Amino acid sequence: MRMAPQVSTTTVLWLAAAGGLASAQADPPAVRPPVMAEVLAASSAADWRQPDPESTLYLDLADGRVVIELAPAFAPRHVENIKALVREGFFDGLAVVRVQDNYVAQWADPRDDDPRKRRVPKTPRPAPPAEFSVPWSESLSFTPLPDPDGYAPETGFAAGFPAARDPAAKQAWLAHCYGALGVARGNEPGSGDDTSLYVVIGHAPRQLDRNITLAGRVLQGIELLSSLPRGPGPMGFHEKPEQMTPIRSIRVAADLPPAERSEIEVLRTDTATFARLVESRRNRREEWFQRPAGHVELCNVPVPVRPRAASSPR
Amino acid sequence: MRMAPQVSTTTVLWLAAAGGLASAQADPPAVRPPVMAEVLAASSAADWRQPDPESTLYLDLADGRVVIELAPAFAPRHVENIKALVREGFFDGLAVVRVQDNYVAQWADPRDDDPRKRRVPKTPRPAPPAEFSVPWSESLSFTPLPDPDGYAPETGFAAGFPAARDPAAKQAWLAHCYGALGVARGNEPGSGDDTSLYVVIGHAPRQLDRNITLAGRVLQGIELLSSLPRGPGPMGFHEKPEQMTPIRSIRVAADLPPAERSEIEVLRTDTATFARLVESRRNRREEWFQRPAGHVELCNVPVPVRPRAASSPR
Repeated sequence: MRMAPQVSTTTVLWLAAAGGLASAQADPPAVRPPVMAEVLAASSAADWRQPDPESTLYLDLADGRVVIELAPAFAPRHVENIKALVREGFFDGLAVVRVQDNYVAQWADPRDDDPRKRRVPKTPRPAPPAEFSVPWSESLSFTPLPDPDGYAPETGFAAGFPAARDPAAKQAWLAHCYGALGVARGNEPGSGDDTSLYVVIGHAPRQLDRNITLAGRVLQGIELLSSLPRGPGPMGFHEKPEQMTPIRSIRVAADLPPAERSEIEVLRTDTATFARLVESRRNRREEWFQRPAGHVELCNVPVPVRPRAASSPR
Repeated sequence: MRMAPQVSTTTVLWLAAAGGLASAQADPPAVRPPVMAEVLAASSAADWRQPDPESTLYLDLADGRVVIELAPAFAPRHVENIKALVREGFFDGLAVVRVQDNYVAQWADPRDDDPRKRRVPKTPRPAPPAEFSVPWSESLSFTPLPDPDGYAPETGFAAGFPAARDPAAKQAWLAHCYGALGVARGNEPGSGDDTSLYVVIGHAPRQLDRNITLAGRVLQGIELLSSLPRGPGPMGFHEKPEQMTPIRSIRVAADLPPAERSEIEVLRTDTATFARLVESRRNRREEWFQRPAGHVELCNVPVPVRPRAASSPR
């Protein structure tokens, strides 16, 4: 028997999307826990949050916008510094200088090699201290995942971000999952001054956790970074200015008039709905799957983003 | 103190490459285990293997060549079928019809939607049976990793491929790491007929393990697939022919004259050298790192590839 045509819309489940939605069934069998599409279809407005415009960056490229949520709960000093740099226009006109396959895309001043030419902040300030982890306090709500992790005693979500924590050391930190935003640094742990930032565009390099400051993650538009041509130089650096993708601007969302903002909502990670979503990913029950894994690794848990519902309060 | 310029070649370690090489030190301190660059610098010719040309595919795009190693030890029937399709020119002139961010790039006949127009194999043959796992036999040398894995009782390398096994069930299978080559299928487990194949271009979707046949992995050139524009349709499918990247040809390396082959070597995974490489990734000891992870996850272990040494026997 000839298999169904593989690109027809009737068989889109044949290789189900990691972050995609199966067609929600109106009346799922009572015996089967819901698949992700059903979890989302049953979600309420209270299951979604609108990122704080004061902690949201827009990285605008010629091809579109990358929306980044900053993580002041994990890197307060660096978030403050990044926003100060953004607000003085530091990044505007700089470029994506490095795209390393299965690793990171990174932006900086292409003239960093030349101390006489490179851009310096208008308001000189020292590099903030390293924020590789933070004290785990009760105010940092942490929703643990049920499965063990090889890189950390516990993983889960905190403030909406994939994160890890060590109950014994009472420390928590952001995890290097796909889309994580980090602060490039030199060999000195405290040398990251936020003038060069990177985004993870490959398999989660968890070995970097607690070795470098993570300050946020991409919510939307990461494909604008992940599909850029890889740099031909060592570690994916571009070698000529014309290879680099210019950065039109980086803005704090709160500084733009509402009409120019990207209005999106993010699924909360501290709800019963999210717990159901996690279970729907631990054991995939879409018809296509033959063998549920019984496990989900932190960086394989999607955190859905959608356009803001018209009915949502601003 | 101003940090060192971040894109200068003197500070390339500042965000060390997942697959990159640190500068090898001629005389590392005896107290420190070697970093990966030192492991490789100390490797001998016997630590490297040349992929069998009879199990190597060249996927040629306008922008270059993707080199794929097939895995007859894990998917003998599908490898045989894929090679038969390749040898009748089935894929030549087809296209990459789907690029889903952080997931897969996939090729097929763009006309698959139309049963009257789509290409059919010149020699009709039924879809091979599903090869989601294979009996674990002694002939399948398996080099286990020291660390636990959430998706499988044991992970490691077999026949040079990232793989997993279940000693109780005496089964082994290929893992969906970055670069894995899979056989698209419909909802029926045995419906994958090799006319549409995909490559993983994102965070390892390990939930697919044992749910679909993997038949190989990319050794070189995956950036030609991973940097393609993402498809605008559901699940990353392209919707118009002009969005799709044409496939010039797929060839079995053995069918090309030696001058047209990509001569590469792959580090063996069943050697003391590879065990040292694994340890160098479990605990990163390059100067940049502050905190070795003490763990490495299967899909974070690089398997180095290099141009074939001139001195290597053919």
